[in-house]
Formats: sequence, structure tokens, C-alpha cells
Amino acid sequence: MIQKPRGTRDFLPDEMERRRHYEGVLRHIARTFGFREIATPIFEETELFVLRSGPNILNELYAFKDKGDRDIALRPEMTAPAIRMFVNGMSNEPKPIKIFYFGQCFRYERPQSGRYREFFQFGAELIGNKNPESDAEIIALAASMIEALGLREYRIRIGHIGVLRQKLADAGVPKERTAEVLQKLDKKLYDEAEPILMDMGVSDLARQEIFDLTETVGGKDVLSEVPGEAGEYLRSVAEILERMGVRDIDIDLGVVRGLDYYTGMVFEAEAPALGAEKQICGGGSYTLSELFGGEQVFSTGFAIGFDRILLAMEKEGTQYELRGIDAYVVPTSDIVRGEAYSVVSMLREAGISSDIDLMGRKMAKAMKHASAVRAGNVIIVGEKELSEDSVTVRNMSSGEQTLVKISDIVRFLS
Amino acid sequence: MIQKPRGTRDFLPDEMERRRHYEGVLRHIARTFGFREIATPIFEETELFVLRSGPNILNELYAFKDKGDRDIALRPEMTAPAIRMFVNGMSNEPKPIKIFYFGQCFRYERPQSGRYREFFQFGAELIGNKNPESDAEIIALAASMIEALGLREYRIRIGHIGVLRQKLADAGVPKERTAEVLQKLDKKLYDEAEPILMDMGVSDLARQEIFDLTETVGGKDVLSEVPGEAGEYLRSVAEILERMGVRDIDIDLGVVRGLDYYTGMVFEAEAPALGAEKQICGGGSYTLSELFGGEQVFSTGFAIGFDRILLAMEKEGTQYELRGIDAYVVPTSDIVRGEAYSVVSMLREAGISSDIDLMGRKMAKAMKHASAVRAGNVIIVGEKELSEDSVTVRNMSSGEQTLVKISDIVRFLS
Repeated sequence: MIQKPRGTRDFLPDEMERRRHYEGVLRHIARTFGFREIATPIFEETELFVLRSGPNILNELYAFKDKGDRDIALRPEMTAPAIRMFVNGMSNEPKPIKIFYFGQCFRYERPQSGRYREFFQFGAELIGNKNPESDAEIIALAASMIEALGLREYRIRIGHIGVLRQKLADAGVPKERTAEVLQKLDKKLYDEAEPILMDMGVSDLARQEIFDLTETVGGKDVLSEVPGEAGEYLRSVAEILERMGVRDIDIDLGVVRGLDYYTGMVFEAEAPALGAEKQICGGGSYTLSELFGGEQVFSTGFAIGFDRILLAMEKEGTQYELRGIDAYVVPTSDIVRGEAYSVVSMLREAGISSDIDLMGRKMAKAMKHASAVRAGNVIIVGEKELSEDSVTVRNMSSGEQTLVKISDIVRFLS
Repeated sequence: MIQKPRGTRDFLPDEMERRRHYEGVLRHIARTFGFREIATPIFEETELFVLRSGPNILNELYAFKDKGDRDIALRPEMTAPAIRMFVNGMSNEPKPIKIFYFGQCFRYERPQSGRYREFFQFGAELIGNKNPESDAEIIALAASMIEALGLREYRIRIGHIGVLRQKLADAGVPKERTAEVLQKLDKKLYDEAEPILMDMGVSDLARQEIFDLTETVGGKDVLSEVPGEAGEYLRSVAEILERMGVRDIDIDLGVVRGLDYYTGMVFEAEAPALGAEKQICGGGSYTLSELFGGEQVFSTGFAIGFDRILLAMEKEGTQYELRGIDAYVVPTSDIVRGEAYSVVSMLREAGISSDIDLMGRKMAKAMKHASAVRAGNVIIVGEKELSEDSVTVRNMSSGEQTLVKISDIVRFLS
């Protein structure tokens, strides 16, 4: 028996309905914030992702050659494609450009709980601006999305990559080795960072200060300990967020993010319900367009792990109520089957979701099928009722049966 | 400058809004017919598509080996994945199973007008039944979708593969060579079919009858010339469609479809606006599950070429009106910027799509940007108005300006 590929999923109707519902919630919130949807191809030139993430990304890519011998890869994320699209075709649009996207991404990694080889991301980018207003707008959008989905417990941690970079430079870490140190600090691997910093001749005191900085977490007040522009900047971001009514945020100078292209504010959101693998969203301000052949343009954005956040909601016990259909039409005999088709077509034309018995089932079996497809009402089309231009409508939750004129059914069910 | 891969597309915001709108129309119609959405992975084991379409499909596939040395391919269509999913996980669900899907498919072919290497299909399958009722339901769904999109000119041509198969068998065409002949007849390549049939010893008369049959087109009445079960069957389908109010259908015994797995009714829809490449939809009744390791289950379904049908509507001059946003908030100075953020957040919370100046623009430039993002209203937040707990709302189409209490804005704009 042929199976789906490892690490991928089939979405059956119940699960798919739930996913489309929450996808719609995210799309609605993005639109209320004035963001507009875009879409890019499922695959890109492999080089695009290497330019964004470095050559190590190749180990995780579904990369291959097409029949024209081009190196292409299934997208592992959508920021690089979005910025590639901006460089190719949107760079002259009025700024800031506010876009969002939703779709599949692919990583060849060991499948585990909440992590798939084909996974879904929702992301947004605000292109063409670098100021606290833009960063606050992006964080507020992420927060509103998480809130609108109904996730109960989550934290948003906001940091600034400039603070740590400055500290490392002051401590004598050479610029070309900063990334190496940041990667360890990102994962709080102090044991591994220590020998590297010692090797660079960073003093015990400076080392401790670096480690302390990455553990600096709290409200706006912790910024009083942060000197210079970066601290000022974050304070502005926090103040705008307050004005926008965004709660549940922490300042956390230990938010590093793994990638070189971040330029200032960085943030992550996590859901405690997920345990160790709790990150559901990550982003920050960055520049990428110059890597793809465009001018340097400041941007800020984020991506939400759609599968992860749905898993978190499930673990919190959030229920999604399946909709079912409005009506299931059952002819009582073959003689009235033609009339039953007229009735079902009339309902559908009026936007009332309706199904009809296609298998010539007897009444008892048809009623059972109506329950299986979660019909709100069963419409019984019988000879006797038809002689009065009527049908019997049975409300499936109350069990109540009503004789309704055919010309009145649409109104009756609306 | 890195470009998108050949034969793929970026969808910018205007185009994407239009596409999401029409995608929503199709989804809505499928739901009113009691069909439920599913989704399958972007790639599958290559074998799945070879089993469905024969080894020639390999020439058109994006097929590659993953890092685990598995043969996988980007899906060229979604019927095979849907039936694979049915065999794996839905075979015990109550019948008939009514599902639909929408997404990208991939074919490595020469890009041309309306044909892309990454293209979008909308499809539906009704699984577990073989009778005129089921086939009519599927055709009615396709017709309602096309109608709901607003395509003005289209024809649906309905045939029955059994009629032609029977004729070929009667004329002495060996079973194992039927596919070869059908492929020529599908494309009306009589010049190429003739020597093949002569080679098989098919008489001049029988040959002419075969060719005549594939040219038999008309209303229900042409079925009087069609003997046997297949003619009866199609007559029933046509009668149910009549009851369901489906117009613009032809009986056309020349509809052959290219593939072996069709078992009975076959149909196609075409849009004359597209010229030579006018097919927008194709389907029919078939069995596939036994090829994938399941039991034989009769099904009927279709796929709509989403890109093609949108192109046809464009050629017919159908306009889609872009929505824009409800409100654009402009603070007149930095002093009131904080209040402006409170206002924009309040609007968004109420579901009113709103944007705010993030670049500290002066009024004239901000008004220009408001037009660029198609704002229905501009909300001017100024010191004087704020002293009366009010803002000025400017209706962008009428130019009318109104002083509105902040507590009343949501109501005012709703």
C-alpha cells in the first residue's frame, strides 16, 4: 500500500476544517492591520536560501536539480522568497510595504512531535522602514494573531541584537567571530561559549557581564540598565506597544535569534503548553534585499509556526466545533427523487449547505447518514407532502418536525 | 539579481486578493454541496503518479531523490494523492465520501499562455458510488462553480467512455491496443488513427462509424442513436441535471479523456474565450484505489484549472474590485502619536481594517499614502480635536469631513 512520504501529513476533513478556520482568523487579523497577502513559488533557486542562511542550510533542504539542470530547492521558510519578490517586482511601491503570506515550508529533519518535514508558516513583513513604530506594529500584529486564535498562555520576549553585539565588541570579540559566539548564546550554551571567549582573551569579568546580559529579563524597567541607543530604541517600542494595548510582553536581552541578517529588535513568542520545544513565533528587524541583488532596505517581520501553535491550543484543551451541513434531503421513494433534486438545488442556490441521498437508502439508513455528515436538518420529500407543495423538515438537535411549504424552506432554514 | 524559477509566478497583493476571492467562491460552493476539504502533501512517492498515469508521466514530473534516497515527486495532479489518502485513512468512512481540495501542482513543460510549471487546481471527488445520481452531482458541482465565478461563456460536454470502448471492441480492436486508439481519438487525430485501425483489420465501414461516433454532439436526443446501457446511463445523468437546473450542457460522445482509469461517464468544460487551449475542467467516473493497494472503489470527480479559468474571466473583461482598507489614521504631530495608536488599536479590535502612518509623514504626504493603500476613510488625530475627545473622519470618496467622538468612531465607520 502506498503511503504518504515520511514527515508529511494528510489532512482529513475534520482536521482540515479546523485548520482552515484558524488560517482564516490569522488572515483576518493581518488584513485588519492593513497587511496584504502575497504568494511565492513552492521552490526557488537553491542559492536564495544559502544567501539568507549560510551553507549549513543545505543539510536540511529538499534540494535537487530540475530537468534543465538548475539547482532548485523546496522553500524552508518564506522571508527570503518574500524579499526576493520585493526586489524583483515591488521595490518601487510606496513604503512601508506591509505583506503577509501563508503556506507550506519544507525541512529534511527527523520528524518529531509538532515538527514535520512539510510544515506550515504564517508570516508578515513590513518593508522599507526602520524605527520603533514599525517594530511595534509587527510585534502588535503577532500578539493580536496569537490572541485571536485563542491561545491562553503565551509570552512575547523582546530583545535587541545590538546590545549584545556592542557588548561583545567592547569585550574584544573580533567582528568575524561574533556569529560563532551568538549562536552559543542563542541556545544558552554557556559551557561551550566560555572556552571560545577565553580563547579570544575575553576577561573573566567581561565574560560574566556577557552572560548576565543574556539573562536580563523583565519589564520596561530593566532597560534602565541598558546604556545607549539600543536601550532607548527598545523603550520606545515598549511604550508604543503599551499604547496599543499589547500585554504579556517581556524585555529579554537574551533573545539572540540564530541569523546574521538581524539588525536590531528581535523577538520570540513561546507557548508553555508545548514544553521544551515551546517557540511558536520568531522575528525581528533585518536587511536582506542587498544579498539578493537589490538595494539595502530595512525591514521587520516574523513567522508563526502554524502547526506548533495549533498543537499548543490542543494541549490547552481548546475545542473547535465542527460545522456540519445545514440540510440533508431524503426522498421517500424513487417517484419523488426528481422533486428532491429540485429542492436540494434551490437550497444550494440560496447558499444553504445541503446534501442529498445518492444511494437510494431507506429512511432509517438515510437518517443515520444525515447524522454522520452532521446535518442540522433533514428534509423529507414524500408523495403526500408534495401533494400540498410541502416537505417535512426535521430539526436534528430538537427532533421537532415541521411541515413547510417548498416556497418557504429557504426562509425557514435561514 | 535572483529571479523566481522559470514557469513559476509571484502573486503580488492585488493579484493575490483577486485569487483568494475566487478561491473562496469555489470553496463556498463546494461546501454548499456538502463536500469537505482535505489536503495532501506537496510531494508523494513517484510511483503513485506512475501507477495513475503510466511511465510517460516521468517526462513531465519534478521527480528527485530525497536525502534518504527515496524517489519522490512534486504532485502533477491531486486525484491520485486524494485516493491514496482515502485508501490509507478514510476507507471505513460512511459512503459516499465527498471531498474537495485546492492547491499547487507541478509539471515540467514549456511555459506558455495560461500554462505554468507551478499551477493551481481545484478538484472534487465523490468516492464509493457508481450511479447516475453521483455523476450528476459531480457535474452539477462543477457547473455551479463555474457559474458562481461569473464566467459568462462556457460549455460542458458529457460523454461516456463505455460507448466508444464497446464500439472499438465490436470492430475488432484488441483490448490491449484500445488505449492507443483512444489517445488518437481524444485529440481527434483521425489521420493518425486510420492506419492504426487499418493495421488491426478494422473495416472501412466500422472505421467510419467509430469516427462518426466521436463527432456525435447534441442534446439528450442524440442518445436515441446510442444503444445499450451506456446510452441509458447518460440519459439518466442528463435528466437529473435538468432537475437540478444545470444548463449549457452537451452530450458529446467524442469526450474521451486521456487516461485508462476512467470507467464510464466522462466530461469536460471549456471556455471559448481561451481560444485553442480552451479546456478549463475535466473529469469523470473512475476506479484508482486498487492500483494503490486498496479495494476497488468506484468514484467520480473532476479538476478545474484555476489559472485557466481566471484567465478566461480576464479575457471576458470581468473586473474584480479591490477592497482597500477601512481607515488610515494620521496623527498631526508627534505629541498626539500615542493617542493615534490607541485609536488604531481600538478600530482593529473591532474588526475595522486600519493602517497608521509609521513614517512621521506630513499631512499632504500621509493623504497621498492613504489613497495608495485605498483607504475608505482618513482619521485625523489632532490636538484641538483631542481636547474634545474627538477626531476628524474624512470620507475619501465624498471628501466629506466629520468631527466624531472617539467613543463613537467604531459605530460611525461600521
